[in-house]
Amino acid sequence: MLSIQEYQEEFISYLKNYETLKEPKNLYQPIDYILALGGKRLRPVLTLMTSDIFNGDYKKALNAALSIEVFHNFSLVHDDIMDDAPLRRGEQTVHEKWDVNTGILSGDAMLIMAYQLFENYEADTFRSLAKLFSKTAIEVCEGQQYDVDFETRNDVTVSEYLKMIEYKTAVLVGAAMKMGAIVANASKEDQNNIYEFGRNLGIAFQLQDDYLDAFGDPKTFGKQVGGDIIENKKTYLYLKALEFSDENDRSNLVELFSSNPEDVNSKIELAKQLFKSSGSADATKQAIEDYTNKAFSGLDKLNISDDKKALLKAFGTNLMNRKV
Amino acid sequence: MLSIQEYQEEFISYLKNYETLKEPKNLYQPIDYILALGGKRLRPVLTLMTSDIFNGDYKKALNAALSIEVFHNFSLVHDDIMDDAPLRRGEQTVHEKWDVNTGILSGDAMLIMAYQLFENYEADTFRSLAKLFSKTAIEVCEGQQYDVDFETRNDVTVSEYLKMIEYKTAVLVGAAMKMGAIVANASKEDQNNIYEFGRNLGIAFQLQDDYLDAFGDPKTFGKQVGGDIIENKKTYLYLKALEFSDENDRSNLVELFSSNPEDVNSKIELAKQLFKSSGSADATKQAIEDYTNKAFSGLDKLNISDDKKALLKAFGTNLMNRKV
Repeated sequence: MLSIQEYQEEFISYLKNYETLKEPKNLYQPIDYILALGGKRLRPVLTLMTSDIFNGDYKKALNAALSIEVFHNFSLVHDDIMDDAPLRRGEQTVHEKWDVNTGILSGDAMLIMAYQLFENYEADTFRSLAKLFSKTAIEVCEGQQYDVDFETRNDVTVSEYLKMIEYKTAVLVGAAMKMGAIVANASKEDQNNIYEFGRNLGIAFQLQDDYLDAFGDPKTFGKQVGGDIIENKKTYLYLKALEFSDENDRSNLVELFSSNPEDVNSKIELAKQLFKSSGSADATKQAIEDYTNKAFSGLDKLNISDDKKALLKAFGTNLMNRKV
Repeated sequence: MLSIQEYQEEFISYLKNYETLKEPKNLYQPIDYILALGGKRLRPVLTLMTSDIFNGDYKKALNAALSIEVFHNFSLVHDDIMDDAPLRRGEQTVHEKWDVNTGILSGDAMLIMAYQLFENYEADTFRSLAKLFSKTAIEVCEGQQYDVDFETRNDVTVSEYLKMIEYKTAVLVGAAMKMGAIVANASKEDQNNIYEFGRNLGIAFQLQDDYLDAFGDPKTFGKQVGGDIIENKKTYLYLKALEFSDENDRSNLVELFSSNPEDVNSKIELAKQLFKSSGSADATKQAIEDYTNKAFSGLDKLNISDDKKALLKAFGTNLMNRKV
């Protein structure tokens, strides 16, 4: 087993080899650009690590890991168009640097290229990987659609919200790990259990994102604290606060999350107060812990050494203690 | 073997079964809508027919045929966004009826769904189909990018143009037929030869599209005659006319294809005159015939009965005698 940082480095050097200046340039340059922008490379690292955990060779999992990363970046390119986002990782988004049509077409090509990376595996593995990939990719699209739908709905339930973040974010974490298990020829049971570990950890991760957006430390949190509040996003914090509040506080909250004041600071402060006083902040922390524990408790079922279980648990704990 | 019309009917009834009202509705309704809009269903019919030609069972090719049709419609949805087209087959385009974001996301889902249809085949066939599909899909993206690039270039060569229409249109016709051959377990040689037949026929088909756009009979041609001329599209007719003209006519032609006059009729007439007098109209007819003959001459190599070769030839001849 390598360290997380070593997996990252191995992945990045493999990625650099993949970037070639193919023709037509206007199709492939944006692809090289977005893939080089960086990020934590969390998903591909999970694929490599999981492959080693099931006694595979992480080198054989590099193409599956790359596929996951190419798909993830495809979804960023298309989502950024839909959200009209100017920046991604501090740099211009593809549709800003080029144009919307380029973003659409280069994204399409990336989705196809993600499938092509499975061609490096023999037929049975290819079929398993592509099948899991398609199922996951469709769920990511459905999650994105739910997210768009929720913007204009006022009756989103907590369970609908959880399904949305599961589809939009968590299933890809599960799939990244399951792919490592597939390449390593792990048993079907182990494949499914590691998928559940990743999926639950993914939900916890996204809920933590919601929590840190409001209560993160401005010194260590990368983005602007309160961004979701400014944009009136109906996150877990908001939905739980609605659920726990009396009629008076509820209508205050609804009103607050329909407003676009110049002074964002008072809005953020007021929202945070309501998140705290309603008990939503604590409930969110509890949900993060619950999903993390759910992920951890599934580790017992895996047919791997205790050392490796401890390693997965340490990875999860580390991820959940992040401030960024 | 069934008749073309019977293959069409079989395909359409299979397609109707595929259309289900899945959730989220805003993702899947546009997909059902575009798939139901119609069209000649030329590509899926070719898949079914080719499967029977190689002694397969067309019923086993229905999922491959559907995959080709879903992919084709995916490309229409995304291309219509890029071209800002209001109408498709006389009805509103997806991004007009819904919005651009819906068009992007529903298109993405269709691309994934096209791959999922291969899951009905066992591992080796799945791998062959998916690999051919990815190669073809990437070429279609590259063809679309070349088409976009050519709009702002004044130095496009005839061979570049031929490559563009090959990628954007012809490879999918070749792939549709090759998939039928793959499902029928035809030999690799037969698979490749039927692909070449479809590819050459596809190029002839697209060149004929260019020709009919200018010289089609307004009574039988479905679209407005002269549409390409109005939009200053640099088709084969235009590029060949440039090649054959003296400096004077060439600058007339360049000027004409930079203009947007109110009176489109005189522009169309003048362009057609130049296409004829330069010899480009005849050269285009000749090129259509050459590619058709190239397709036909490849039929000799196929390990199928003469009856079936005659059938493929009749199909091609029929297609090339169309006025629509």
